[in-house]
Amino acid sequence: MGVRSQLTQATLDLKMGFMPIITLTTDFGTVDHYVASMKGVIWTIAPEVKIADVTHDVPPQDIAHAAFVLWQVWSSFPAGTVHVAVVDPGVGSSRAILVGQYADRFVIAPDNGLITWIHRDFGGQALHAVEDSQYFLPDPSNTFHGRDIIAPVAAHLANGVSLERFGPPLKTPCLLDSLRRASCEGDALGGRVIHIDRFGNLVTNIHADQLSREEDGSQGWEVLVNGKSIGLLRKTFSDVADGESVAMIGSAGFVEVSVRNDSAAKRFAPTADTVIAIRPRRS
Amino acid sequence: MGVRSQLTQATLDLKMGFMPIITLTTDFGTVDHYVASMKGVIWTIAPEVKIADVTHDVPPQDIAHAAFVLWQVWSSFPAGTVHVAVVDPGVGSSRAILVGQYADRFVIAPDNGLITWIHRDFGGQALHAVEDSQYFLPDPSNTFHGRDIIAPVAAHLANGVSLERFGPPLKTPCLLDSLRRASCEGDALGGRVIHIDRFGNLVTNIHADQLSREEDGSQGWEVLVNGKSIGLLRKTFSDVADGESVAMIGSAGFVEVSVRNDSAAKRFAPTADTVIAIRPRRS
Amino acid sequence: MGVRSQLTQATLDLKMGFMPIITLTTDFGTVDHYVASMKGVIWTIAPEVKIADVTHDVPPQDIAHAAFVLWQVWSSFPAGTVHVAVVDPGVGSSRAILVGQYADRFVIAPDNGLITWIHRDFGGQALHAVEDSQYFLPDPSNTFHGRDIIAPVAAHLANGVSLERFGPPLKTPCLLDSLRRASCEGDALGGRVIHIDRFGNLVTNIHADQLSREEDGSQGWEVLVNGKSIGLLRKTFSDVADGESVAMIGSAGFVEVSVRNDSAAKRFAPTADTVIAIRPRRS
Repeated sequence: MGVRSQLTQATLDLKMGFMPIITLTTDFGTVDHYVASMKGVIWTIAPEVKIADVTHDVPPQDIAHAAFVLWQVWSSFPAGTVHVAVVDPGVGSSRAILVGQYADRFVIAPDNGLITWIHRDFGGQALHAVEDSQYFLPDPSNTFHGRDIIAPVAAHLANGVSLERFGPPLKTPCLLDSLRRASCEGDALGGRVIHIDRFGNLVTNIHADQLSREEDGSQGWEVLVNGKSIGLLRKTFSDVADGESVAMIGSAGFVEVSVRNDSAAKRFAPTADTVIAIRPRRS
Repeated sequence: MGVRSQLTQATLDLKMGFMPIITLTTDFGTVDHYVASMKGVIWTIAPEVKIADVTHDVPPQDIAHAAFVLWQVWSSFPAGTVHVAVVDPGVGSSRAILVGQYADRFVIAPDNGLITWIHRDFGGQALHAVEDSQYFLPDPSNTFHGRDIIAPVAAHLANGVSLERFGPPLKTPCLLDSLRRASCEGDALGGRVIHIDRFGNLVTNIHADQLSREEDGSQGWEVLVNGKSIGLLRKTFSDVADGESVAMIGSAGFVEVSVRNDSAAKRFAPTADTVIAIRPRRS
Repeated sequence: MGVRSQLTQATLDLKMGFMPIITLTTDFGTVDHYVASMKGVIWTIAPEVKIADVTHDVPPQDIAHAAFVLWQVWSSFPAGTVHVAVVDPGVGSSRAILVGQYADRFVIAPDNGLITWIHRDFGGQALHAVEDSQYFLPDPSNTFHGRDIIAPVAAHLANGVSLERFGPPLKTPCLLDSLRRASCEGDALGGRVIHIDRFGNLVTNIHADQLSREEDGSQGWEVLVNGKSIGLLRKTFSDVADGESVAMIGSAGFVEVSVRNDSAAKRFAPTADTVIAIRPRRS
């Protein structure tokens, strides 16, 4: 089924009364009313939708963190899902808000790079700028577009309002240049840490697909952190002893550096300059 | 539409099978079973309600924090919503539990000041003490009224049981004297910090409505923290550079003191005695 | 109603289209996509189920903490509820995943001790190993069985697939020997701390049932922390002044050691070796 027919199916489901899920990814934290205010607005306009919290603990204004999380949950949710992301250091400025469709799901977010990974990974998108204030709350504030603009637009989208009704096409969304797959350097790949998770696992931008070529005479893939080997790429945590470093293909499809039953973030204290490399080991 | 006819409409919706939302605001945290136990009890009695977490990260026993959050989400949710708040340092003592209706939504909470802002802001309330144990779980504990009394009462209320069934009228609810709008001092307003949010923004008790009078010859409103000016009241974060202090009307309608892309809570370290004042600047 | 007829009723409800609740207890934290990925998978397979977060803030790999929380919420949820627990230091190794039924609710979890309390407390269980990959996502990862195996199995179970379809009977589940009720020592009971909650309350393994015998000439039950008395067992927090230590029967039915409006965890700093004892006080 091509992208075109998928789009049609999703639109059809919306028109036929299928009530989609709205997911929320924000840096609003959980001590204030901000997230609940968005939920209240959504359920006032679209009483039957399901709402799924993805995370509200994105580090304040960390667009790269949220972009990764948004991408990871994208396809786990059913077709027709509306993914909302609000990490918005430019709120109140002239930055646009975008509404779009990729791979049969929808996104609403400030146009500040939050869609970088999904834009690069999926094709066939339709993107519009959110401009028609009939879909906003009256008198939107300058500091809480999540409640006053993004939540009501998400709810109207879930109710079946089509993308082009919200505003004109948006041709060149803002994409973060730093969010790319690792690059080749000879027969090695030089990558970096794109996400650190709760367990202290370091997710790199070296994807399993990039390792698929056969290497004659190789004993396996050797993984190096800032030039120092941490051993061969393994299959699972139990391939090493407690407290040992290990690199594996993680659940996101990327090479991850971990410490079994401990934190790789603590052991390696990675910075933006930390290089994680992988190369065939030859005898 | 007056308050009276709104009340009637909400009652009507409940009787007609409209299943309301129950929101939860507590200081129970998220590492234990407490919140989920309440949800299980609610869904056992009222299987069709939606449950919305507002926050469970109210600082332990911080009634003022919860009172502000409860007030902020109040009207974002649809008419008929049941707002539950449990911050309850007096659990097991003789403090009452109240059930009430304000502005077409319902509240259930210990009678300890949690409703202060909504009681002062909305009229036309009906308040009852929760006393009839037929709506409780059998043999309520002395330490977890949230699960054993408040959750089942909320579920029965959502099922259409009317307020007066839960107990006798409660005439004088406990209100916190500290939770009031700022007071005038000549042509200035002297306020204080009533809420600090996740981003370190300082929400004051100076409301935009209090600034509405025209000031002849004024260049704008000057904002002072403990007597020291931080500049004129602005419209949006982008009116100042990164790292600069800024005061704006925030999304709650109050003057807020922020630092662009940083924390005002860290910069100003406000205490209960910190005075935030605002006055017309004249040349 | 015996356990047998309860089982039949639950099965019947599932077959008749009653959509159960799925609860989630994990150590995945809330900053990543892990929990939301599970929810997306569940709603893709079983679009009508309700999902209740119990906690995702189990300390990383703390099976005992999760086992206690799972047990506490077990019966608060309606019959037919599917309780999912994922704290899984052995992911990717040969540890089994179990699916079972206790007291009219279902459980899915790694077989590593998470069911210890419910297994010891409830009878009549049916337990199976999860082995049939037709109920998994295609190509499960080695590091995220929560998304790839446990979430889809939970959703299929909610859809009415019966236990025996997932795999062969599992006769001897892994149980943690440390999770037991306190033992008698003469006329005293010697217990330990099995859970520390958000407020710093210390939940012991001394259950109220164990105190039910009459003690001639006793003035009440005296509670001792590492041999030092903290007074008699009380009914409620308000029996002591602010800042005083107090022991009560907590909402879980166990003796709890607290400090009124403060943290017993801070005051007593309990370790695995801390002994909480209770004995009749005689004049």
